[in-house]
Amino acid sequence: MNKASLIGMLIGFGAMGFVFFEVSHRHLMMFFSLEGVLMVGFGSVSVTFMAMPMDRMMQVPGYMKRFLFDSGMKPIQVIETMNLLSEKARREGILALESEVSKIKDPFLSAGLKMAIDGVEPANIEQTLRMEVMAMTERHKAGKKFFDLIKVYGPGYGLVGTLVGQVGMFGQLASADIGALGHALGIAVVSTMYGAVIANAIAGPIGDKLGLRSSEEILAREMMVQGIVSIQSGDNPRVTMDKMLAFVPGSSRTKYKTAA
Amino acid sequence: MNKASLIGMLIGFGAMGFVFFEVSHRHLMMFFSLEGVLMVGFGSVSVTFMAMPMDRMMQVPGYMKRFLFDSGMKPIQVIETMNLLSEKARREGILALESEVSKIKDPFLSAGLKMAIDGVEPANIEQTLRMEVMAMTERHKAGKKFFDLIKVYGPGYGLVGTLVGQVGMFGQLASADIGALGHALGIAVVSTMYGAVIANAIAGPIGDKLGLRSSEEILAREMMVQGIVSIQSGDNPRVTMDKMLAFVPGSSRTKYKTAA
Amino acid sequence: MNKASLIGMLIGFGAMGFVFFEVSHRHLMMFFSLEGVLMVGFGSVSVTFMAMPMDRMMQVPGYMKRFLFDSGMKPIQVIETMNLLSEKARREGILALESEVSKIKDPFLSAGLKMAIDGVEPANIEQTLRMEVMAMTERHKAGKKFFDLIKVYGPGYGLVGTLVGQVGMFGQLASADIGALGHALGIAVVSTMYGAVIANAIAGPIGDKLGLRSSEEILAREMMVQGIVSIQSGDNPRVTMDKMLAFVPGSSRTKYKTAA
Amino acid sequence: MNKASLIGMLIGFGAMGFVFFEVSHRHLMMFFSLEGVLMVGFGSVSVTFMAMPMDRMMQVPGYMKRFLFDSGMKPIQVIETMNLLSEKARREGILALESEVSKIKDPFLSAGLKMAIDGVEPANIEQTLRMEVMAMTERHKAGKKFFDLIKVYGPGYGLVGTLVGQVGMFGQLASADIGALGHALGIAVVSTMYGAVIANAIAGPIGDKLGLRSSEEILAREMMVQGIVSIQSGDNPRVTMDKMLAFVPGSSRTKYKTAA
Amino acid sequence: MNKASLIGMLIGFGAMGFVFFEVSHRHLMMFFSLEGVLMVGFGSVSVTFMAMPMDRMMQVPGYMKRFLFDSGMKPIQVIETMNLLSEKARREGILALESEVSKIKDPFLSAGLKMAIDGVEPANIEQTLRMEVMAMTERHKAGKKFFDLIKVYGPGYGLVGTLVGQVGMFGQLASADIGALGHALGIAVVSTMYGAVIANAIAGPIGDKLGLRSSEEILAREMMVQGIVSIQSGDNPRVTMDKMLAFVPGSSRTKYKTAA
Repeated sequence: MNKASLIGMLIGFGAMGFVFFEVSHRHLMMFFSLEGVLMVGFGSVSVTFMAMPMDRMMQVPGYMKRFLFDSGMKPIQVIETMNLLSEKARREGILALESEVSKIKDPFLSAGLKMAIDGVEPANIEQTLRMEVMAMTERHKAGKKFFDLIKVYGPGYGLVGTLVGQVGMFGQLASADIGALGHALGIAVVSTMYGAVIANAIAGPIGDKLGLRSSEEILAREMMVQGIVSIQSGDNPRVTMDKMLAFVPGSSRTKYKTAA
Repeated sequence: MNKASLIGMLIGFGAMGFVFFEVSHRHLMMFFSLEGVLMVGFGSVSVTFMAMPMDRMMQVPGYMKRFLFDSGMKPIQVIETMNLLSEKARREGILALESEVSKIKDPFLSAGLKMAIDGVEPANIEQTLRMEVMAMTERHKAGKKFFDLIKVYGPGYGLVGTLVGQVGMFGQLASADIGALGHALGIAVVSTMYGAVIANAIAGPIGDKLGLRSSEEILAREMMVQGIVSIQSGDNPRVTMDKMLAFVPGSSRTKYKTAA
Repeated sequence: MNKASLIGMLIGFGAMGFVFFEVSHRHLMMFFSLEGVLMVGFGSVSVTFMAMPMDRMMQVPGYMKRFLFDSGMKPIQVIETMNLLSEKARREGILALESEVSKIKDPFLSAGLKMAIDGVEPANIEQTLRMEVMAMTERHKAGKKFFDLIKVYGPGYGLVGTLVGQVGMFGQLASADIGALGHALGIAVVSTMYGAVIANAIAGPIGDKLGLRSSEEILAREMMVQGIVSIQSGDNPRVTMDKMLAFVPGSSRTKYKTAA
Repeated sequence: MNKASLIGMLIGFGAMGFVFFEVSHRHLMMFFSLEGVLMVGFGSVSVTFMAMPMDRMMQVPGYMKRFLFDSGMKPIQVIETMNLLSEKARREGILALESEVSKIKDPFLSAGLKMAIDGVEPANIEQTLRMEVMAMTERHKAGKKFFDLIKVYGPGYGLVGTLVGQVGMFGQLASADIGALGHALGIAVVSTMYGAVIANAIAGPIGDKLGLRSSEEILAREMMVQGIVSIQSGDNPRVTMDKMLAFVPGSSRTKYKTAA
Repeated sequence: MNKASLIGMLIGFGAMGFVFFEVSHRHLMMFFSLEGVLMVGFGSVSVTFMAMPMDRMMQVPGYMKRFLFDSGMKPIQVIETMNLLSEKARREGILALESEVSKIKDPFLSAGLKMAIDGVEPANIEQTLRMEVMAMTERHKAGKKFFDLIKVYGPGYGLVGTLVGQVGMFGQLASADIGALGHALGIAVVSTMYGAVIANAIAGPIGDKLGLRSSEEILAREMMVQGIVSIQSGDNPRVTMDKMLAFVPGSSRTKYKTAA
């Protein structure tokens, strides 16, 4: 479970829930509007289907999972693993890494190591791995795009809902009493509110997290590429480590150095 | 038929239709305004003609077709085709692919293969194919641009319509009764609503889909380029497959491997 | 005359004219406000002078001309010309192109050909031509910038005009009758309307067209560079054509092939 | 003095001044609000101090100078100077340029020429000069950033001022008469107006001009780099000129050629 | 302490404090709304947790520190240090720099020098150092992102708060007196105001400063890379200085030259 995502959602929904209760004096139905739900909810669904290819839509549960759960190796874990591998390769030769590969869970790292052990040329390894990173980046972009679409078009549909409600209200401006007009106006504004909530409290931050985690995974994989090539070319483990440590801030380096 | 596009349009128009009916109590004419149609509809047409060259305008039906129908090979199909081709080239030599080329529907792939069979140098093949991808990218951008123009300027013209309506209404503020003013105000707001609908429910998502499908086609063609060059250079089919599989997510790989 | 630009302007101004007539019941003066004209019109002029260097301002008539009239060779014309040239160079040698150069109207193409005939090294030709394309791109950006400035700051000045009008109106809120207030409010809103019209119906689409045509010209010149270098290096005309045809969509290719 | 900047400011402030006079019937104090000045004026100052390092703030007078006065060589001047230099170098050898260097006011050009005369390797000259262009670009960005900050945050602070004023007004909604409310509302709106004026009539266009002039200077320096390297490598003056002329539009070329 | 940041904050909060006092006639509670604080304050916290990985959140105090305190060497200090080092290396050989390294506080510069002294190949030094700059750039982006998130979503939550308040108010439009409605409306608008303040007066400028200082540090490190490589390759100190001075404006150069 990704703690930060969970904490963030609890704080956000808690604050909104409290304010809704306070303002409506526990009559939460005040903030419900069938028209608003239809426009913003179904509108967002409509837009994602219209804008994304079917096979991307199938991957939506996977996008949610990526938001809620941790995955991939952290830079510090990459460094530790690479340290072990480079030491072993130095002492026992690169073929000795064969037994280690099966223990590595990260499919990218183990595939790269396998190529290095098989004696594939460094330039080829780098090219194949980089193409994979490029393709992963494309897939991550699609995940982020899903939430970005809701962030952009949710409020758009919310605006349509409010305008529809206002047109309806203006039509009965002469006949209705002020209480009924206020009620109609409230319903109309609720639609804009739904759009603002879905964009600012849900889809927006989820999309941002997916984007940030994508950069992190790209960085971790870049570290792996550097490390694999360095190990294969028979670099001194200290040289390999220097290349790895370049990717983390100074403070993490000392932490690692004492840990090692 | 592209299912996702169809489903998305049905959901979106269904939700809007229901809300329009509900709010107007079946008097849908309430949401009709000749001024709004003229401003947003004709305004959008005007802008696309002003902003795009004539020959791009001629291709608009083609853009719509690209939105509604599938075209181009999916990555998984590229992989399967490349697997067959690389196996055959390995067993029977690259000239044996001549008979396969005629079966391939994708003009880009068959042209590239033909060059490989004719013994054109790899660097030349890559350069020619990449130039073609670059030119395709330019054409796709033009298709997306058409809908982006409507997305941007449709609401702009909608705003002009609303402002014109408001100026008209303010002019009779003293003489008219509140019912007439409400009616005038409703008409004015309808113009903004048209702009919001055309941007958020129609042009925006269509443009986004064209953009996403363009990236997909570029990716598929990049795979083809890699595969053709790999086959021509006599790579082991497994090496060719490794290069192809780098482009698809881990899950699709296993799916493919069991299928193969 | 660029037909698309003309058609677009007629549709846009026609629709706006009709709506203005309809809403004002032929009292078009209702939509006139000296303050609005001063703010949006003079404000836009002010901004372009403040933001652009004097020599760029001198070229404004040229920018308008680029919007209204066609210029430059279309890709299909480049292909036809290149086909003729490469055939002739193949049969009679590159020096035979000397007589053709004078017939070519495009100064970029004829300059490049002249260098090729003079035996300038291919790398030099490419470098010189590409620098010229880069410089042309810069000039085109300046043209687009002019209209983008109006698109951005026109509505900004329109907003200032409306706010000034509102402040004036709020100041007489107690003393004036509702008819006078409505009139004042109308005048104030007209200023925003002018800004929306100048941005959405005039400057925006013109800037977009200049941008699209710039990409087209860059593409055509890229084709010329490829063609000139290919001809000079003595490529088979079919190879030269393959490089050219990579730039146009499949449909245009068949069209060309039947034409050739 | 940069004429375009001056003309633009006169037109803009003239138009605004006239409209202010007209609307307020010469009671300009109507448009003064101490709160608005404090929020928009001091707010903008606050933001620039918060966002920019101290040493950048020290250079603000320099940014204003760059907006108001011309500096740097125009492309056409670069061409003329380069023409003289390349002719002289051709006739009398590159060492003969020593006497010319002292006459050149542009420090970039004279430094580059000095290196060329000293026999520094072309690759080194190009690298050093390009690093200098890169660093200049960074400095120009900082100048533009100053005005962009005011353009973005000025209206933001203006909005805060208006909201503060509105809250104050809503608090006395029951007790105050309509004249007082109108006055309070006017004061509140003035704050938004200040933000719109500072962004659209002052900071925005100044930032745009700094950006455009930066591109111009980069272009001129790129021309100098090309010219210096060309002269040093002993190119025929005509070849050097061809490289220079690539940077200017066709019309300027003829103008130059007749002048030369 | 970073003086500019401090001055900027004092001016901004001073101006806002004065205006709040003035408008509320010292009844500052008028501008307090529990709902507003919950929505904008807790909403911003929620969004940052949802959008950023936990380990990035842990670094927030570090981001604030970077805003409030100076760190890193200024370009002019880099030049002075490099001047000393290159002179010493020229006179006594590169190994003589060993004693200087321990005096250098900047960890990037001392690590690079150590590699140079150890005789690591220039290409390797450059690659390792550039990877470190790239990784630092990524970390800086994360710091800027934190404030950018608040800048974007703070006002978004503020809008939600205002809409909630308006819906509550519209619900009692018939029953409540105008004083109560004004009060409710004031509370509602306060939420938008909090959003505007947090975005424009706090998070926005802090994020901008972090961005600008990141560029400055990248520039300083680029200078160090150039200098280290130049010293190692045995360049004349004057050549090393020329490369350094390319990064600073002309005026600073003279200042340095007189100082040296």
